[in-house]
Amino acid sequence: MSDIKKVVLAYSGGLDTSVILKWLQDVYQCEVVTFTADLGQNEELEPARAKALKLGIKPENIHIEDLCEEFVRDYVFPMFRANAVYEGEYLLGTSIARPLIAKRMVEIAKQTGAQAVCHGATGKGNDQVRFELGAYALNPNIKIIAPWREWDLLSREKLLAYAEKHGIPIEMKHKQGGSPYSMDANMLHISYEGRHLEDPSAEAEASMWRWTVSPEAAPDKAEYVDLEFAKGDLVAINGERMSADKLLRKLNELGGKHGIGRLDLVENRYVGMKSRGCYETPGGTILLKAHRAMESITLDREVAHLKDDLMPRYASLIYNGYWWAPERIALQALIDHTQQNVNGWVRLKLYKGNVVVVGRDSKTDSLFDPTIATFEDDAGAFDQKDAGGFIKLNALRMRIAANHRARKG
Amino acid sequence: MSDIKKVVLAYSGGLDTSVILKWLQDVYQCEVVTFTADLGQNEELEPARAKALKLGIKPENIHIEDLCEEFVRDYVFPMFRANAVYEGEYLLGTSIARPLIAKRMVEIAKQTGAQAVCHGATGKGNDQVRFELGAYALNPNIKIIAPWREWDLLSREKLLAYAEKHGIPIEMKHKQGGSPYSMDANMLHISYEGRHLEDPSAEAEASMWRWTVSPEAAPDKAEYVDLEFAKGDLVAINGERMSADKLLRKLNELGGKHGIGRLDLVENRYVGMKSRGCYETPGGTILLKAHRAMESITLDREVAHLKDDLMPRYASLIYNGYWWAPERIALQALIDHTQQNVNGWVRLKLYKGNVVVVGRDSKTDSLFDPTIATFEDDAGAFDQKDAGGFIKLNALRMRIAANHRARKG
Amino acid sequence: MSDIKKVVLAYSGGLDTSVILKWLQDVYQCEVVTFTADLGQNEELEPARAKALKLGIKPENIHIEDLCEEFVRDYVFPMFRANAVYEGEYLLGTSIARPLIAKRMVEIAKQTGAQAVCHGATGKGNDQVRFELGAYALNPNIKIIAPWREWDLLSREKLLAYAEKHGIPIEMKHKQGGSPYSMDANMLHISYEGRHLEDPSAEAEASMWRWTVSPEAAPDKAEYVDLEFAKGDLVAINGERMSADKLLRKLNELGGKHGIGRLDLVENRYVGMKSRGCYETPGGTILLKAHRAMESITLDREVAHLKDDLMPRYASLIYNGYWWAPERIALQALIDHTQQNVNGWVRLKLYKGNVVVVGRDSKTDSLFDPTIATFEDDAGAFDQKDAGGFIKLNALRMRIAANHRARKG
Amino acid sequence: MSDIKKVVLAYSGGLDTSVILKWLQDVYQCEVVTFTADLGQNEELEPARAKALKLGIKPENIHIEDLCEEFVRDYVFPMFRANAVYEGEYLLGTSIARPLIAKRMVEIAKQTGAQAVCHGATGKGNDQVRFELGAYALNPNIKIIAPWREWDLLSREKLLAYAEKHGIPIEMKHKQGGSPYSMDANMLHISYEGRHLEDPSAEAEASMWRWTVSPEAAPDKAEYVDLEFAKGDLVAINGERMSADKLLRKLNELGGKHGIGRLDLVENRYVGMKSRGCYETPGGTILLKAHRAMESITLDREVAHLKDDLMPRYASLIYNGYWWAPERIALQALIDHTQQNVNGWVRLKLYKGNVVVVGRDSKTDSLFDPTIATFEDDAGAFDQKDAGGFIKLNALRMRIAANHRARKG
Repeated sequence: MSDIKKVVLAYSGGLDTSVILKWLQDVYQCEVVTFTADLGQNEELEPARAKALKLGIKPENIHIEDLCEEFVRDYVFPMFRANAVYEGEYLLGTSIARPLIAKRMVEIAKQTGAQAVCHGATGKGNDQVRFELGAYALNPNIKIIAPWREWDLLSREKLLAYAEKHGIPIEMKHKQGGSPYSMDANMLHISYEGRHLEDPSAEAEASMWRWTVSPEAAPDKAEYVDLEFAKGDLVAINGERMSADKLLRKLNELGGKHGIGRLDLVENRYVGMKSRGCYETPGGTILLKAHRAMESITLDREVAHLKDDLMPRYASLIYNGYWWAPERIALQALIDHTQQNVNGWVRLKLYKGNVVVVGRDSKTDSLFDPTIATFEDDAGAFDQKDAGGFIKLNALRMRIAANHRARKG
Repeated sequence: MSDIKKVVLAYSGGLDTSVILKWLQDVYQCEVVTFTADLGQNEELEPARAKALKLGIKPENIHIEDLCEEFVRDYVFPMFRANAVYEGEYLLGTSIARPLIAKRMVEIAKQTGAQAVCHGATGKGNDQVRFELGAYALNPNIKIIAPWREWDLLSREKLLAYAEKHGIPIEMKHKQGGSPYSMDANMLHISYEGRHLEDPSAEAEASMWRWTVSPEAAPDKAEYVDLEFAKGDLVAINGERMSADKLLRKLNELGGKHGIGRLDLVENRYVGMKSRGCYETPGGTILLKAHRAMESITLDREVAHLKDDLMPRYASLIYNGYWWAPERIALQALIDHTQQNVNGWVRLKLYKGNVVVVGRDSKTDSLFDPTIATFEDDAGAFDQKDAGGFIKLNALRMRIAANHRARKG
Repeated sequence: MSDIKKVVLAYSGGLDTSVILKWLQDVYQCEVVTFTADLGQNEELEPARAKALKLGIKPENIHIEDLCEEFVRDYVFPMFRANAVYEGEYLLGTSIARPLIAKRMVEIAKQTGAQAVCHGATGKGNDQVRFELGAYALNPNIKIIAPWREWDLLSREKLLAYAEKHGIPIEMKHKQGGSPYSMDANMLHISYEGRHLEDPSAEAEASMWRWTVSPEAAPDKAEYVDLEFAKGDLVAINGERMSADKLLRKLNELGGKHGIGRLDLVENRYVGMKSRGCYETPGGTILLKAHRAMESITLDREVAHLKDDLMPRYASLIYNGYWWAPERIALQALIDHTQQNVNGWVRLKLYKGNVVVVGRDSKTDSLFDPTIATFEDDAGAFDQKDAGGFIKLNALRMRIAANHRARKG
Repeated sequence: MSDIKKVVLAYSGGLDTSVILKWLQDVYQCEVVTFTADLGQNEELEPARAKALKLGIKPENIHIEDLCEEFVRDYVFPMFRANAVYEGEYLLGTSIARPLIAKRMVEIAKQTGAQAVCHGATGKGNDQVRFELGAYALNPNIKIIAPWREWDLLSREKLLAYAEKHGIPIEMKHKQGGSPYSMDANMLHISYEGRHLEDPSAEAEASMWRWTVSPEAAPDKAEYVDLEFAKGDLVAINGERMSADKLLRKLNELGGKHGIGRLDLVENRYVGMKSRGCYETPGGTILLKAHRAMESITLDREVAHLKDDLMPRYASLIYNGYWWAPERIALQALIDHTQQNVNGWVRLKLYKGNVVVVGRDSKTDSLFDPTIATFEDDAGAFDQKDAGGFIKLNALRMRIAANHRARKG
């Protein structure tokens, strides 16, 4: 361990990472660089600076960064081009933030001459994998410190005792047990795990949800919203063009207001167990629905089906932490290639938890051809007789087989 | 054409198939056997008998059958085992009824000595393909008559004129133009296409929907419902075991009441064009959500992912009319094999268009292991140190590549 | 038909397309533009000019083009980047030439103001589909004339009679029945179908094969050859850099000499029937083996597996005629993306039908890391203890399931 | 460790596993049960008994079993039904033996009351994963001892010193350095890794190969052989029905004689590195070729393509050690389902490394229909006009898109 002189710690300013900070100083006897990222989790980050200073971190070693725009533009939006959903339900809100944090940690390590990076993710979860696969892919020689896999502070009592002993400020909420949930948030979503949720047969408590109102409490009047897309990415809401960051914030506001994007599921972790999680993804839920609708009139059928066939694989790659792996990048090349014509607008109706597509159009790229699709007289645009041959040849192999079976008796 | 002496006609009793009936008698000069199936479309079928008699069909040539139980048990339920959704949205309500109709037509043809079958599906749509691929797969030598691809009655005016000339009763609604939509219904869904919907940018009219109330008009109070599954199939609702037919009717009732299952989309037809359709699938929407939740605690991760990877292909097969094809049957063998442990119950909350999973459990087959999943002390059930090696080896290929890139410079 | 004033005919100069030429003049009463492509089929093309002139084609309407370099560079090589093989065996020699012919026909039609294109492919085969899908994709309004689906000259006797009647020169070989096989050739392969081969239980006649010697007749001494790749494409043989065209000619020469690349198989045609074909693909067989070996040390594992998973789909697209379809192009974007590091060389031993890889290396891009792979002491490059955790977590879901089964009894 | 009283050791009788045996007695101080399996590796197994006795194993603790028939029937044949090939080349000879060994180890542990199993596979390879995933899947609570990941005998010198010190007989070959290769054999194949092969650019030494003659040394005269299949499995050679075991032995004999089945490749291990291996799979190479040919006339096209699409995944599962995983078993259900009609015979020509299919037929299940496939007059079996509509509708989406592009300009 003596070869680690400096370490970059992903530091939230909370109790757990403050304990880790202290523990690194004690056990590894190394200089600690803190890295605190604003990913839109709706938390004040300056207190993290004050706390880091108090714990003896040099001012120049404290890195607090606003990554919101980069996060949405370079991670969230590319993922939504793929309509990525894990196991049919989960919108990958936690998963997609990890690669960016891993990247910045490795970059800050390089910049500050640190040999190692350190994170506060548990040894049972997916996040450790996502952080570390990302870090290794970007710097194969980086050292990684994962305290939860190393130390013996495995109970809350031990952690609090350690904090007390080392003069780490403990807020009242931690003394009282704090939130009953293990939570994670960024601009795409907030997640809840643990405690009450560990019984998958029990309904989540109404008080748990933080970002959305319940459908019951949402407005009684529906709201219409127009989303505009360019090359598969959202570019404007109700005619107003905004940065990626602002667009997602706006969608979150709309979704939160209308009770949209709550999810309660049991998922399969990469490390092998099933786990129950609850999520709020208000803006993402709206965006996914709209993007699919946008594609429905602008993508060729077989391209859309190819994307659908590959989507679960792509989603698993992100869930499992392979954002920086060459196979994710290769799939992204295909996905991005398909989005060049995904331009136009989608109209949605938001109402008490529902996101309903009510209209979609593309001035430049619609493949919907009303002269062919019509149930009215199409003036010869489509020769119905063609269907006879189409069916006959598609049936041929089955007819040969059926004839064979008949002969066989 | 002289080799067709007798033909089985898929007969609804409506104007179109009545015109076809007459046209077959005229043009093919053959005996017509009518086949009218009750698939839960919520229509009286006895009028079809009266009308057929009036059009000169012999009583013994009129076949009216209640296929509801067979439909749900042998077609709808097997499809839901696969969580089949076409193009991310469509629950395949029309598609799944066609194979059963094709099968009964071929069987009745055999039983009555008919050489041909005839249907009233348009030459532009998917249904002709589904009927005919099914018929050919089951009887490779059957003749198929598809009047819309043969005759010249391509406008509504010509059709009405033909009807009038041949004494086919025309109801007032047809004279007035009838429904503005082309509709299809069976116990799984009702669909709307055409007219106003041919502009995909325009919202569907509120008056169009028939099976569900709007979310706005749904009760202000949520309703909880418990669904019980055995081998992947729904077997009981709120503790009451019922036949497949009754179960789906009950789900439809619940969904209809709570404004669940409306869908407005643009889909890609097998014959090559995009088409806009609106659907109400109240019970199916509930069932799909519940089945996925049931699988979430009873299916192995990799089995679930295998199913997810194959699902779009399976759904396309059904959409395109390949129910009776050997590849659909091979996939079904895999899917059915996976369902043996899909036993337990799911609790749902229904509220104004929302189907929310709030709990799930399986006394016999839950793979959710709280002793391992817990965020609390797990008493050694999971050794967090294992994760280090897991990550290291999964990262190895990326580290080798990164080292290589670094050397390459 | 009167709207077709000019038609571009894919003209080989042989009997069949000469009859078609005449038939077009007679039946369509239109001006005929002939297009004869040199794709490396090893045939003199100037006789086609003389024959066309004799049949009344204006000199300026005769197009004879050497497409060899374009064919190999833009069609064969991109396909080999994917390691495309149809149904586990067939190297797609015929399939890959059709898109280029279709493209040139459409371009010549545009350039000459022709409304239609015409080909001599049978109505039972794949080639008609490939020509026509290509033509339609490139010019949706082109008219296509497929005489074999229109005329009644369906027997060889009728064809000869027509030729005789219209003064089309009939070579002796045709009078004597000609080759017993239906053949197609281009620089990638030569194919044989029909006659004797229509009994798939019977061995092909030794006299049939034209491009390769039999393994028995090949040299008794093996020959070593070094192939060099850049970005997945062959660029040099035995150190000599050549154009794509020359490289494939050289491989064909080597393969032909050593009895390499004969194939006898039953394949599934897109139009629905099984068909028996024999193929000689001497150069392609060598190239495929070498390309796979090149990738084996330069491609990441998961990228290689992704390519393997997608390959059958890509191959089917080409077989079925979808070269110009957007889904093929999207897949190609992924495939080409993966090839940037496929650089290096492969050493092969050629001997009596065998292509044996005996060595491969990449100075710039080898991911083979001997310090890790070694069975000897690796000085800590790989920590074997990591494997324990790797296995434990990969086994976890199966252990949970097994424990569950045990409890269930 | 004190909870391990008894351990089942996979014991070959060679130096390595003898050292392990001793080491277990020393370090774990437990009773050792030896398990030696005859999988057709062509080695005398009785010496293993003598050696075990000499090392203090009780006679009743020595298990030597002939598993040849079970191996071929229940592992090799099911795998060949899938045409499984890893990374386009490797026939999975080592991989497929591991699940059976794992199963027997777990069964013997249960029968003898052992708490643990132990194997001699290195911590860098695939075999440890295969053994252990199998063992865990079959008994989730089994303890596994992997000495190579635990001890410090990591060099050959240390191993020999340990053996000498503990009185383990060292054969002359080990003193002289032994084989230059790390080898594994069973009835399906023999493999070579390490030493000279660790340079993938260097040709394997001619003296390495043991089971096959070189093509050069093979007979100058080809040999024909007829293979008969029932439900996808080989059942007879040249008309002689034999047990699975005998059939594969016979194929190995034929392949070995004719220089068939040598392979030299670089593969991607599950643990993350590339590795160079050479393989001889004489019988398997013949069997794979024949099985594909058998399927070519008996399998429906889309079923065959479904199998091809899934094959790489199935092969990876076996390569990675997931034979006993539920997803492999689910895939097997599909694969076995498809094999019911794979009945008939295939004729092969074996000559100097070449396996050439020259004929195939199935009296009961051929889907090859000569009346349709024929190039001659088919008397209306296939209406060529049908192809027009088939192509038109398949082209429709591309024509709509092309028209759109043209309008867009």
